[in-house]
Amino acid sequence: VKGRITVIGTDGILSPEVESIAYDIGKSIAEHDCILVCGGRAGVMEAACRGAKDAGGLTVGILPSIDGSDANEFVDVVVPTGMGYARNSIVVSSGDAVISVAGSTGTLSELGMALNYGKPVIAVEGSGGVSDLVKEISQSDDRLSRIVYAKPSEAVEVALRKAGLV
Amino acid sequence: VKGRITVIGTDGILSPEVESIAYDIGKSIAEHDCILVCGGRAGVMEAACRGAKDAGGLTVGILPSIDGSDANEFVDVVVPTGMGYARNSIVVSSGDAVISVAGSTGTLSELGMALNYGKPVIAVEGSGGVSDLVKEISQSDDRLSRIVYAKPSEAVEVALRKAGLV
Amino acid sequence: VKGRITVIGTDGILSPEVESIAYDIGKSIAEHDCILVCGGRAGVMEAACRGAKDAGGLTVGILPSIDGSDANEFVDVVVPTGMGYARNSIVVSSGDAVISVAGSTGTLSELGMALNYGKPVIAVEGSGGVSDLVKEISQSDDRLSRIVYAKPSEAVEVALRKAGLV
Amino acid sequence: VKGRITVIGTDGILSPEVESIAYDIGKSIAEHDCILVCGGRAGVMEAACRGAKDAGGLTVGILPSIDGSDANEFVDVVVPTGMGYARNSIVVSSGDAVISVAGSTGTLSELGMALNYGKPVIAVEGSGGVSDLVKEISQSDDRLSRIVYAKPSEAVEVALRKAGLV
Repeated sequence: VKGRITVIGTDGILSPEVESIAYDIGKSIAEHDCILVCGGRAGVMEAACRGAKDAGGLTVGILPSIDGSDANEFVDVVVPTGMGYARNSIVVSSGDAVISVAGSTGTLSELGMALNYGKPVIAVEGSGGVSDLVKEISQSDDRLSRIVYAKPSEAVEVALRKAGLV
Repeated sequence: VKGRITVIGTDGILSPEVESIAYDIGKSIAEHDCILVCGGRAGVMEAACRGAKDAGGLTVGILPSIDGSDANEFVDVVVPTGMGYARNSIVVSSGDAVISVAGSTGTLSELGMALNYGKPVIAVEGSGGVSDLVKEISQSDDRLSRIVYAKPSEAVEVALRKAGLV
Repeated sequence: VKGRITVIGTDGILSPEVESIAYDIGKSIAEHDCILVCGGRAGVMEAACRGAKDAGGLTVGILPSIDGSDANEFVDVVVPTGMGYARNSIVVSSGDAVISVAGSTGTLSELGMALNYGKPVIAVEGSGGVSDLVKEISQSDDRLSRIVYAKPSEAVEVALRKAGLV
Repeated sequence: VKGRITVIGTDGILSPEVESIAYDIGKSIAEHDCILVCGGRAGVMEAACRGAKDAGGLTVGILPSIDGSDANEFVDVVVPTGMGYARNSIVVSSGDAVISVAGSTGTLSELGMALNYGKPVIAVEGSGGVSDLVKEISQSDDRLSRIVYAKPSEAVEVALRKAGLV
């Protein structure tokens, strides 16, 4: 295994386009011999896990619940924390790089936290939600400006390069 | 005591204007018979704590360190967590409302987390940093749009009202 | 304020004797000009908070819940963590010393954690539960042997001395 | 995969006997098609991970550090939390059952926490440290009495049975 890539994003119903983007990113993470880390729940997390499993990869879900019952069915390693949203910090600290797809306030908290930790952060262009929104403001703040924007098809390779895994 | 108001923002050297805004907000929190909660460190946190103490208030600092040595001198109740940035979640969960002054990625993670928890969030207009930046993008996301923008002199009263404390 | 003393112990119905011990310890903490820190709930925590308030002290409750609704009525500073039992770590890291009264597995986890952090730990003799039970085994382990056993009436003074607060 | 078994115990230099016990338990966990979860560090954690890897298993290490540099070389899935000892809670919440080998105060905090969570807890008889010590006191407390004591060679099968995995 080369490393761990965290995928963050919308927790809920996805448009077919975002579903497809998340699936492809998960698949690509596995194809690049990396472990997929995520919050373990629905939406972008589930689509990415499904992609990773279809490529024979390994998936890790860091969950808010204490019993793990909120894990999607494509999570191999269930890590129930019982810490609620406070687990967002661990979702991003567990990746060598973080890829963001769409998302709302949960994703925003994780983007901020990933930058706190100095992680390479790749926001997927055109995926919508806060992943696109932060681009509008990121040039106005030194640390926000470290976010890299990449096309869906290039996000994983950029993440690997920024994390020094290739 | 009426309630607890969390103040988040820049951890570091402040402009005289931001220093003054943070000080006045801390003072106003105390004058409104509320406890000031913050991350306990320098910058906006320290200025707000100083303001609260000058008005005879009570201040709480939820700290990243395990020994509390990073607390500013105006913190009454030192809560050393040993959890690093993961403590940001507790900083916002401990307030009935959250007021944001300037700030960078740490503040961004706390804004996202406060919205996750459904807390009233008041960003101080004209304080700079992410507190101003989020305004540019907040109308594009349902949950981000819940952030209320207020002048420095009105932020505390808005916070109290939104939290149902008055 | 001289410092912070954490009180841990049974969360639930107490015998009159244990209730009285916890109350007196809380009262003594306040009389010695210290802040009382605890898990904020019922049983020993509530009795100790009640004692501290009767002596005009300040009480802090680090709570498992995210809304603070599980705080006893004698907690001044409610810190809702949303982290469930994981908050036990913060309960003990927030005190300069830890006093243990009766208790079961929650108290045991806090005793272990307080020793991990190198905190002075005072178990109240005759209070029952794990506070008495650990005495039977503490001489067999270097780190467990650091627990100090004290009569109810002497626990707070021992705690202050061990924490270097007097 | 059938489930996840957490192994807790001494973090440091082991006697050859304890090293061998921990290794065999890790190996057996993998042979029973379970994921091994642990604190990811040295001593019992490392020996158990080594055993699991020799049997082709998967190992997870929930680490105190933020960079994962304290992981032993046999950890497949590194989860750096940056939460210090507070991560002990997640180590035990992530297993369907918890097996304890030797250990000191860290292990004691995890035993208490595992019982808080209602996890099946198996202490390995004759492994020394708190795993043996708790036996002396466990009959005196309802919740402590839920700890099951098992010979090294039977610990994993007992854990699987108690967790309903077989």
